[in-house]
Amino acid sequence: MAMDRLLEKIAELQNPTVAGLDPKLSYLPDFLKAESFAKHGKTLEGAADALLAFNKGLIDALYDIVPAIKPQAAYYEMLGWQGVRTLTETIRYAKSKGMYVITDGKRNDIGATMEAYAAAHLGVTDIEGEQAETFGADALTVNGYLGSDGINPLLAVCQARDKGIFVLVKTSNPSSGELQDKVLDSGETIYRIMGDMCENWGKELPGKYGYSGVGAVVGATYPAQLGELRKALPHTFFLVPGYGAQGGGAADVAPGFDENGLGALVNSSRGIMCAWQKEKCAPEDYAGAARREAERMRDEIVSQIGKIKLPE
Amino acid sequence: MAMDRLLEKIAELQNPTVAGLDPKLSYLPDFLKAESFAKHGKTLEGAADALLAFNKGLIDALYDIVPAIKPQAAYYEMLGWQGVRTLTETIRYAKSKGMYVITDGKRNDIGATMEAYAAAHLGVTDIEGEQAETFGADALTVNGYLGSDGINPLLAVCQARDKGIFVLVKTSNPSSGELQDKVLDSGETIYRIMGDMCENWGKELPGKYGYSGVGAVVGATYPAQLGELRKALPHTFFLVPGYGAQGGGAADVAPGFDENGLGALVNSSRGIMCAWQKEKCAPEDYAGAARREAERMRDEIVSQIGKIKLPE
Repeated sequence: MAMDRLLEKIAELQNPTVAGLDPKLSYLPDFLKAESFAKHGKTLEGAADALLAFNKGLIDALYDIVPAIKPQAAYYEMLGWQGVRTLTETIRYAKSKGMYVITDGKRNDIGATMEAYAAAHLGVTDIEGEQAETFGADALTVNGYLGSDGINPLLAVCQARDKGIFVLVKTSNPSSGELQDKVLDSGETIYRIMGDMCENWGKELPGKYGYSGVGAVVGATYPAQLGELRKALPHTFFLVPGYGAQGGGAADVAPGFDENGLGALVNSSRGIMCAWQKEKCAPEDYAGAARREAERMRDEIVSQIGKIKLPE
Repeated sequence: MAMDRLLEKIAELQNPTVAGLDPKLSYLPDFLKAESFAKHGKTLEGAADALLAFNKGLIDALYDIVPAIKPQAAYYEMLGWQGVRTLTETIRYAKSKGMYVITDGKRNDIGATMEAYAAAHLGVTDIEGEQAETFGADALTVNGYLGSDGINPLLAVCQARDKGIFVLVKTSNPSSGELQDKVLDSGETIYRIMGDMCENWGKELPGKYGYSGVGAVVGATYPAQLGELRKALPHTFFLVPGYGAQGGGAADVAPGFDENGLGALVNSSRGIMCAWQKEKCAPEDYAGAARREAERMRDEIVSQIGKIKLPE
């Protein structure tokens, strides 16, 4: 199953991290933008072209040490369909280099509409007998507010095409508790109910290392909840945002891991994309700076969790 | 404010309905597909081209009697960036005909990422000083599971550019209660908490007819909750899915309206798009059938709510 492929890649590279590709134009070195603007002007097409060049540079620098990328759909949609084309090409390029791709779209809907999202991001679209792959990620983040009607259509595609999902459970932002921390009359929190739903949905997609194809998004900024959920949801793999720019450190993410150093994938977006700005290196070395930051982050997290082992 | 423009359009046309443009290839007459496939083959481009022609035909047939369209992003993403281009062109075409456009994307994220979605769907993208409009809808559906961090970035764009949002509160699907109907230790349901958050967010975007720029999605399939929420949320305008194909009738949507015949906008997607199949008319008359169904739906709902009046 899809989560197995991710776990194998994590163990192979001994690195439980993912590079978030959420590029804003201001993160890009001027020389990249100048090349694209010279071709296309300061247009959506020009900006989308520059983003693609930036992403390819990062992927080239990261693919042999980082198991996965997580492009955030919003930053591509911000550049219109031209940006969405860059998202497509970024995913293809990363996959051609052997990386696991998680599209961060937080998609949600029901029935036939959720089937359309599943086809779009994880499946294929049938055009009267011709099969076309559109985005082709390995996994998609989703929002479970609509209940099983919003998740079941994804499970069928995940089953058929060896893909996975990550459901928002406890997000990393300061206001995540406004709804997610509310306590039900049963005594449980909303995030815990959502987590239990993930365990339940995951029964449809069991994995050979104990983690199902239904993962959960749990923020690094709430280490107590991360640890609570790690114990409560033994078959649910965690995607962990909030490391770095949002304030989470290696000690904060440690409770998300199990005794094999598995169970969580920690995301860094700005930390990696903007490493060249923080390092104040030559802009031409932006990808080198990203690699150095990815190595630093890997080493910092691995120092907390030890050697990563796939269970027999 | 943006919701005012929608209310004025509803009153002008005496029609509180919206045409959902969620097109699947199987909804399209063969002659339209044949033209596009002849040009582009059975490809994403060919399918996206056929969808655009279908949508334009529907908009031409509806714009003088139906105030708004609601394209569902999933069906466009299913055709890759080519489909997303068709979404863009559909929105532009509908706006050129004076229609109000609600992009049904159920987007959700936080901070800078939500700002990117806001720019994408409701705002403009700045490309080093050049302003580019991308999708350019009047309103966007969003999911509030992440709390205020996910909504505040939208409010700023809505304020600056006269746009609106609709937050998922009580959705129309059978499993919506799995999470949304759960009862908190305070005795309130989750959907009610989310509804109260809409009223609260809406204070930032007051409207001159009493409804704020922050609307709510409340399904036609739960008339009791629709009536409960209409009373509890006097400043929150409702987008009401679930009429027709999902089982809701005119009597079911009536509790969503106030004494002026305002307060709700009822969506029909398949009912309108597939009217030609149900009517068994000539495929060339698909847009005529859509218009006839839109008139029937309008008359059925207006018979329940009476004349629509803008309050002084």
